[in-house]
Amino acid sequence: MNKTDTPVTVIGLGLMGQALAGAFLKAGHPTTVWNRTPSKADQLVAEGARLAPTIGDALEEGSLTIICVTDYQAVQELLGASDVELDGMTLLNLTSGDSAQARETARWVTQRGARYLDGAIMAVPPTIGTAEAVILHCGPQADFETHKSTLDALGTLSYLGADHGLASLYDVAGLAMMWSVLNAWLQGTALLRTAGVDAATYAPFARQMAAGVAEWLPGYAEQIDNNSFPAEVSALATDARAMAHLIKESEAVGVNAELPKLFKAMADRSIAAGHGGEQYPVLIEEFGKPRGD
Amino acid sequence: MNKTDTPVTVIGLGLMGQALAGAFLKAGHPTTVWNRTPSKADQLVAEGARLAPTIGDALEEGSLTIICVTDYQAVQELLGASDVELDGMTLLNLTSGDSAQARETARWVTQRGARYLDGAIMAVPPTIGTAEAVILHCGPQADFETHKSTLDALGTLSYLGADHGLASLYDVAGLAMMWSVLNAWLQGTALLRTAGVDAATYAPFARQMAAGVAEWLPGYAEQIDNNSFPAEVSALATDARAMAHLIKESEAVGVNAELPKLFKAMADRSIAAGHGGEQYPVLIEEFGKPRGD
Ligand SMILES: NC(=O)c1ccc[n+]([C@@H]2O[C@H](COP(=O)([O-])OP(=O)(O)OC[C@H]3O[C@@H](n4cnc5c(N)ncnc54)[C@H](OP(=O)(O)O)[C@@H]3O)[C@@H](O)[C@H]2O)c1
Ligand SMILES: NC(=O)c1ccc[n+]([C@@H]2O[C@H](COP(=O)([O-])OP(=O)(O)OC[C@H]3O[C@@H](n4cnc5c(N)ncnc54)[C@H](OP(=O)(O)O)[C@@H]3O)[C@@H](O)[C@H]2O)c1
Repeated sequence: MNKTDTPVTVIGLGLMGQALAGAFLKAGHPTTVWNRTPSKADQLVAEGARLAPTIGDALEEGSLTIICVTDYQAVQELLGASDVELDGMTLLNLTSGDSAQARETARWVTQRGARYLDGAIMAVPPTIGTAEAVILHCGPQADFETHKSTLDALGTLSYLGADHGLASLYDVAGLAMMWSVLNAWLQGTALLRTAGVDAATYAPFARQMAAGVAEWLPGYAEQIDNNSFPAEVSALATDARAMAHLIKESEAVGVNAELPKLFKAMADRSIAAGHGGEQYPVLIEEFGKPRGD
Repeated sequence: MNKTDTPVTVIGLGLMGQALAGAFLKAGHPTTVWNRTPSKADQLVAEGARLAPTIGDALEEGSLTIICVTDYQAVQELLGASDVELDGMTLLNLTSGDSAQARETARWVTQRGARYLDGAIMAVPPTIGTAEAVILHCGPQADFETHKSTLDALGTLSYLGADHGLASLYDVAGLAMMWSVLNAWLQGTALLRTAGVDAATYAPFARQMAAGVAEWLPGYAEQIDNNSFPAEVSALATDARAMAHLIKESEAVGVNAELPKLFKAMADRSIAAGHGGEQYPVLIEEFGKPRGD
């Protein structure tokens, strides 16, 4: 069977589900769809999709079923219905949730005889079907490999490991990086605007800094894995002094200082614990502790 | 005169001053040095530097004098001494400080008849003299251009504009980006460690996210300069919901949630002000307001 002959089912036709089903159709896969509100299938049916009359019927089709709805509660409602038979199915859940929900759903689905992969979409609907769309997968590697050629229609695939919680964890960790880069850029943009520098003038500098620091991460990761933080390029106490400059500068020009103050509070706690002479990644100890109430 | 024949003076021979003077010597510039504690010049003198007996004597030499000491207070103490004649000098101050201090020093120095450039070193001493060392400059462009070929000995030069406060502002803005990328990476590393993923395994993903988001900044900057924030790829309210996932996930696995909570608090304030349907850069309004007490 040619790879694009592989049938596939998509459950949930919100913005994302429609994009997923559309990408499968474009790649030539016989595509069955189902949605609680059937009218959202109209465009896909016009493009060649088969609209299943019931979710049970949709699931009988295809070697692989993808579900992408609002949240895990909706997943459980849909798959828990009495007319839904999961035995022998392979399910890939691309709904956003947390790692505990993913692991719980894996237990529940596999107990009912299905194979289960969890995933997370690090992309917006218009990019689905292009290399720009990064899609994370976790669960049994053999099941991922079986369906990889089908899933290739969606974007750039990444397999993270067998633990069903990994996609959710990488997802939120990646978003934390996204917001951090954006927030730091906004902090800098706000500071520079006080000197009449427009955002477009400042942005290339911020881009270069972010990309430059990104290159340090693999090396810094070795310090964490070795649990040894020699101050090869600078000591945490030096960073904390420069953080005080950032706070002072922000306050002096009337810019929000909350983010710089949080940075310094975390560094100060680590310095108080005796780590002022060590390098920045020693802060992993602060990040690894529950706090924030 | 061959460009490497241009004499230069370095005042302040701490870790950074020694690296600066060493780079000038390596590039062949006749280099005069002075430091409050003269013994710090020993190695440089062995490499060919001339140690001036007084700061006044050091300043009489050379077409360009660079000062790099602990802080602006030390700069003022040194240059304000009665035997120091500034008339006709060009001074480049690479001492770290804030934009108000730089502008005040510019006024004070130029009133005494000198030309003044301010700068900031975005590098650690061992990289000085290599392309990796980025050095920011501001002040009259003509003065920067006059000395550019001499300063090339120090690293990769960047000229920011005439406002003497710009180097300090870019400096702290760049550091804010550095700490943000590192903190987000630590947040993600802490999350993934709860699933047994080591830091080295997670780091390439964080690097890719940071570098990827960095590419968005010039486009997002246009929204700020146009003061118009259409939700082309996603709305702030969608980000805020995903921030709640990040907080919940961090708390569930026992990881610090302070940073995610600050992100969400800022987004929530902007949503409460009616911006939930706009795109992330609309947060510039929150960053541009004094806050953080
Ligand atoms: N859109 C994005 O940019 C994006 C990016 C990455 C990840 N995601 C994730 O992808 C998932 C879907 O997002 P979306 O943008 O497609 O959302 P959406 O446009 O709001 O669509 C939600 C979908 O879930 C269905 N649904 C919700 N509750 C249900 C229930 N109780 N029973 C049956 N169906 C239910 C809806 O059915 P009806 O049509 O009948 O209401 C609809 O198909 C979410 O987990 C989201 O976090 C989205
Ligand atoms: N090191 C870095 O990684 C780095 C990176 C970027 C920027 N910088 C900036 O570069 C500047 C110098 O840093 P550094 O690392 O060279 O510091 P450092 O090793 O502590 O040296 C400080 C220098 O300042 C002099 N000094 C301080 N107070 C003085 C005073 N009242 N009168 C006369 N001289 C005085 C010291 O003279 P004595 O030798 O007599 O004490 C010494 O030459 C700082 O503004 C720092 O923020 C440093």
